[in-house]
Amino acid sequence: MATQVQQQSNRFDIPETMKAWVLGGSNELTQVRKPVPEPGKAEVLVRIDAIAVCATDLEILERGLPAIVEGEDPFNKNFTIGHEYMGTVVKLGPDVDEYQPGDRVTVEVHAGCGRCPRCREGMYTSCLNYGFPSKGHRANGFTTDGGFAEYAVNNINTLVHIDDSMTDEEATLVVTAGTAMYGLDVMGGLIAGEGVVVTGPGPIGLMGVAVAKALGAQPVILTGTRDNRLEMGRKLGADHVVNVRNEDAVEAVQRLTHGKGVQYVLECSGAADAVNEAAQMLNRGGRICLAAFPGDPVPVDLAYLVRNNIYVYGIRGEGKSATHRAEAFMRQKRFDATLIHTHTFGLDEVPTAIKYAKERIDDAIKVVVKMRADA
Amino acid sequence: MATQVQQQSNRFDIPETMKAWVLGGSNELTQVRKPVPEPGKAEVLVRIDAIAVCATDLEILERGLPAIVEGEDPFNKNFTIGHEYMGTVVKLGPDVDEYQPGDRVTVEVHAGCGRCPRCREGMYTSCLNYGFPSKGHRANGFTTDGGFAEYAVNNINTLVHIDDSMTDEEATLVVTAGTAMYGLDVMGGLIAGEGVVVTGPGPIGLMGVAVAKALGAQPVILTGTRDNRLEMGRKLGADHVVNVRNEDAVEAVQRLTHGKGVQYVLECSGAADAVNEAAQMLNRGGRICLAAFPGDPVPVDLAYLVRNNIYVYGIRGEGKSATHRAEAFMRQKRFDATLIHTHTFGLDEVPTAIKYAKERIDDAIKVVVKMRADA
Amino acid sequence: MATQVQQQSNRFDIPETMKAWVLGGSNELTQVRKPVPEPGKAEVLVRIDAIAVCATDLEILERGLPAIVEGEDPFNKNFTIGHEYMGTVVKLGPDVDEYQPGDRVTVEVHAGCGRCPRCREGMYTSCLNYGFPSKGHRANGFTTDGGFAEYAVNNINTLVHIDDSMTDEEATLVVTAGTAMYGLDVMGGLIAGEGVVVTGPGPIGLMGVAVAKALGAQPVILTGTRDNRLEMGRKLGADHVVNVRNEDAVEAVQRLTHGKGVQYVLECSGAADAVNEAAQMLNRGGRICLAAFPGDPVPVDLAYLVRNNIYVYGIRGEGKSATHRAEAFMRQKRFDATLIHTHTFGLDEVPTAIKYAKERIDDAIKVVVKMRADA
Amino acid sequence: MATQVQQQSNRFDIPETMKAWVLGGSNELTQVRKPVPEPGKAEVLVRIDAIAVCATDLEILERGLPAIVEGEDPFNKNFTIGHEYMGTVVKLGPDVDEYQPGDRVTVEVHAGCGRCPRCREGMYTSCLNYGFPSKGHRANGFTTDGGFAEYAVNNINTLVHIDDSMTDEEATLVVTAGTAMYGLDVMGGLIAGEGVVVTGPGPIGLMGVAVAKALGAQPVILTGTRDNRLEMGRKLGADHVVNVRNEDAVEAVQRLTHGKGVQYVLECSGAADAVNEAAQMLNRGGRICLAAFPGDPVPVDLAYLVRNNIYVYGIRGEGKSATHRAEAFMRQKRFDATLIHTHTFGLDEVPTAIKYAKERIDDAIKVVVKMRADA
Repeated sequence: MATQVQQQSNRFDIPETMKAWVLGGSNELTQVRKPVPEPGKAEVLVRIDAIAVCATDLEILERGLPAIVEGEDPFNKNFTIGHEYMGTVVKLGPDVDEYQPGDRVTVEVHAGCGRCPRCREGMYTSCLNYGFPSKGHRANGFTTDGGFAEYAVNNINTLVHIDDSMTDEEATLVVTAGTAMYGLDVMGGLIAGEGVVVTGPGPIGLMGVAVAKALGAQPVILTGTRDNRLEMGRKLGADHVVNVRNEDAVEAVQRLTHGKGVQYVLECSGAADAVNEAAQMLNRGGRICLAAFPGDPVPVDLAYLVRNNIYVYGIRGEGKSATHRAEAFMRQKRFDATLIHTHTFGLDEVPTAIKYAKERIDDAIKVVVKMRADA
Repeated sequence: MATQVQQQSNRFDIPETMKAWVLGGSNELTQVRKPVPEPGKAEVLVRIDAIAVCATDLEILERGLPAIVEGEDPFNKNFTIGHEYMGTVVKLGPDVDEYQPGDRVTVEVHAGCGRCPRCREGMYTSCLNYGFPSKGHRANGFTTDGGFAEYAVNNINTLVHIDDSMTDEEATLVVTAGTAMYGLDVMGGLIAGEGVVVTGPGPIGLMGVAVAKALGAQPVILTGTRDNRLEMGRKLGADHVVNVRNEDAVEAVQRLTHGKGVQYVLECSGAADAVNEAAQMLNRGGRICLAAFPGDPVPVDLAYLVRNNIYVYGIRGEGKSATHRAEAFMRQKRFDATLIHTHTFGLDEVPTAIKYAKERIDDAIKVVVKMRADA
Repeated sequence: MATQVQQQSNRFDIPETMKAWVLGGSNELTQVRKPVPEPGKAEVLVRIDAIAVCATDLEILERGLPAIVEGEDPFNKNFTIGHEYMGTVVKLGPDVDEYQPGDRVTVEVHAGCGRCPRCREGMYTSCLNYGFPSKGHRANGFTTDGGFAEYAVNNINTLVHIDDSMTDEEATLVVTAGTAMYGLDVMGGLIAGEGVVVTGPGPIGLMGVAVAKALGAQPVILTGTRDNRLEMGRKLGADHVVNVRNEDAVEAVQRLTHGKGVQYVLECSGAADAVNEAAQMLNRGGRICLAAFPGDPVPVDLAYLVRNNIYVYGIRGEGKSATHRAEAFMRQKRFDATLIHTHTFGLDEVPTAIKYAKERIDDAIKVVVKMRADA
Repeated sequence: MATQVQQQSNRFDIPETMKAWVLGGSNELTQVRKPVPEPGKAEVLVRIDAIAVCATDLEILERGLPAIVEGEDPFNKNFTIGHEYMGTVVKLGPDVDEYQPGDRVTVEVHAGCGRCPRCREGMYTSCLNYGFPSKGHRANGFTTDGGFAEYAVNNINTLVHIDDSMTDEEATLVVTAGTAMYGLDVMGGLIAGEGVVVTGPGPIGLMGVAVAKALGAQPVILTGTRDNRLEMGRKLGADHVVNVRNEDAVEAVQRLTHGKGVQYVLECSGAADAVNEAAQMLNRGGRICLAAFPGDPVPVDLAYLVRNNIYVYGIRGEGKSATHRAEAFMRQKRFDATLIHTHTFGLDEVPTAIKYAKERIDDAIKVVVKMRADA
């Protein structure tokens, strides 16, 4: 077995250095050459084949790394951002046999330390050693080098096998769908036949619509401000869409549910009044998952939450291996995630890709960077 | 069997009318005579022996019944408030054999309709037929006549058998302890060895301290503004108390937990900044239960909740039969709930009792009304 | 509102008596005329349009009612069996507005009493007042009259609205799919991408395959002894089928999962060695749901269960409103339940229908009795 | 920080070799000198101060290591058994700061690999890499060297800080209490006021009584065959004890619960009919945890489990950090675990200690080996 692995490993010529984009000052991204990293215990080296731009990347670019210790200047650390990537396993760390060189994989963000109480109970996205790679924690593109580069090291816990039927571009979207799925999981999970409102048709919101429908939710209602996004939501499975420029969102939901409201709201807009509106879309005992948030504190009607037994779940990304569940649905063609992929650029064009994503040029939703023209 | 029940029933002379206090206009309470009600299917008649004044009673007195249909004037409905009562079963509805005349019982507030989706999944405090007695929903003292009277009808689901070792006064506190216990339940329940902060040393907060300690939480930290209340919390099991007039609550919790924070906050203060402070007392993945709330919307830092995977649970009272679990702890003498009972009055002195509770005269915490001098 | 309901109610001419099949002695079923029953509180009268024969019906026919008090002769009680029925609401009990006359509905079996601890926590299929209709418990066709008749009274908790797109025959299968779904629910519910083995391709097993696939399980493996049944399983979503006459079931599962085993086994065969085999199909920490069982005690290797942290869930029918979730999937055409419907007879042909089901004449799976030729 | 740690580390003179008992052939234990092992990443070196003999030790002694790959002779591997030990941290692996040299700790058995799906969901006792230390899995005394020696390496996940108020002997019992607590956890956890039967007054059973009572269960009923053990159970919190030599266990439980049965049975006897009897002690929807098991398959009435919605949980030891919760209860003096500690021997007397435990000489329950006379 070991011999065969060795031979497979030789299939890939791994250079000593690689192209990588690194964060300079605020909104400054530079291409450099860096050493190709070595995978350690429980790690593999992934040759990155494609990576999508996430809104969080834009935030890091502007404000720096959120996980850097307070007081420290977050910029100019030779750090490579980017976390929505997929690629090919090209080298194994010691004792790894869960993956083989040549395996196509996509990645999720968080590898918990595995040694804190939160990790030990399976809540690895709440790892108490967040930001301490020496203790084993990794958050790809947040606290350890990410994917705007030719190669990246990954803990095997962050890998998801992908099906051959999936293109590289589609595979970059698994983590987004996985985040949406996790949001539904934490609210209870058994949603077939239950009403779900998704507020905000960004990438997570749109994937939220798709996953909620795949799980049998009914009705799935999407709210937003742009008709073309809402239309995309409809294609992904929304039973109803509501343009909040034309109609009050709460009234619309109550109308569509005959005054009953829904059981779950997946909040993906980050709007200032989103929690209060979500609460009023719910029936008593309903639940809200916050997958987005406004930058500053906003007024929340806590009395309404208490009087109506409402639970609010903040989630930081995709936990409980939800990416694996999302990949399963995508592999089974339950929805077409590629609908939200709108633009593609090459590795040398990362600044342009980011500009498209940031300024929503040409109505960009998911902008993907592909590493090789032929791939 | 039926014969025996009948005989027992005869033990109690039940008059045709009874004394009852009814809500007039705002802050207007009048003693009247009302017919003693008849228990129906799954109901019993309880002779009330004692009732405690709850802060919610004061609110209803001032603002009216929260559950009355919107737009309708909430006052002058001949309605009897009061929900923290205990007493003796004196008459059984048809087919009731779960209780016998002579049984001493205390009550919880909510009997769900049993026919809506929320009730059917066991979430009876989120009953979707709240406020519709015709469908079977009852909320004692909120939507159906409560306990500032000589008798009240109760659905058997709202009854809790009490031990002979418990005084009438102590038994009125079961529902308060049950609410605190439910707050700990919804956050996860397995709290032995975990850190718990209780914010606000009102009755629910103080019972929260006692129940958390009984369940093995460690440390249990109580925050508040009055030293005598904090001292009471210490007697009920708090490992540490923090007077927030003297020390920043968040800093104190971090100091007491060596920078680790706690896993659970039971928020019982209703302070404007309580959620934000609670969040900063928690470690990542921590949980907040809101058992109190400010009257108006307050600024909440949602970004902090999301980035730290924090869940917030609004609870309306005592669900999932937590009162039975609370009674078990009290029966086993795990804590002395009577510490929070400070004053006692007679049935004719209800206005005085309420005045004491409202104005915290003589440092009143729990003010109890006893129906009979000799009891 | 009341007026309109009244008018709708008048749409249906409800006779005073009806045809009904009643249980005589063992394996004796007689058609009689009975009074049409009156719906009480929280009940409706359903005009039965179709009913499927369940294996449990055959058992009751032979051995009598399982719920009858021990020692009592279970036969000759003028009792109407049958629980997999659907129909049309024709009359409402007092205060019912959740359904309207004319609504098409299918039914699940259990209406818990709503007043025992199990019901109160949402476990109504474990009602502690099972078999006591006076306390509100109903199990259609088990403890209260069932559906081999023209009309039946139902608690609204046992009703499920069905979509117009569903035929009467298909609607009789909702409860079977709901039982399978409940089996997956109790084992954890989040099964997308997880391996599931279904043992035994009877109606529940075949619906188990369909529901597991709808929820994204992967692979779904069906084991059985008859190729045509297995083929049907394949059409309903099984990724692999194993004829245990040709191959050892455990070895097959290990082969198909590359030695990893699966996480869940839904046991629907009732075979003597089923639990032991299921355990060996699982990976550590796996779960087994027993939806079938052998008549007599069988040897079980408990040491294997303990050493491998395996949990075993016995389920009696369909709990936690799983029928609603099943109906949602069927409404959304996630799978074609009608594949398992093989034969249809009229109300006067019930004995023939039962004979077909019992003797599997003409390879019968689900035999449906339709009440009206034109329906 | 690092410097200080280094200095503390120097407080302990760690020799190069140590005394250790190793497994030879069946029932053959020999004292040898072995190199003191080095702690790796996320590990510490523990100087063992005391260790208790567990029934599983006796089994390994006789039959060999359960986790050794099939077909391989389990004996003569120079392996040190023993898993119920406590001691003092004397050396830290790289990057460890969760513990400091000098910390008193007790240990639990399982450190999952942290990289398989079961570990990632928090089920580390079901680790799919059980028996593969190279992947990070450790089961102290089962797959990696245990505690009948002067030193042992431990993953920090298997450590529990112990309070100064706890003696070394008491600390060896934490893992036993933790196993009992885990058994109650998996069955649901919220047991205040619920009935619990513990069958079998061995160490886990007796600790099960203590923990159930600490959590507020009521009644707690212990069944067994020896009066002195039952008496000990009474001291640890049992409300009732039943000597099954004098009375049928099922009848006794039904009598003591007025025919209601209990909600939970913690099965610690391993008796052949234990599951069937447990099932009949339960009310519908009840749960059984198997913490013991008969060596061979036994007849189980699966029909009864299904008809009564009973769940059966096999547990291999102590999961979900239950040892930490158990330690918290013991630290808070909720029960006196030392009641079950009956005998003490020195390190050179291990064979005698084992003989006492095996043959229950002088009514031995927990036999403890202390490493140093003065400690």
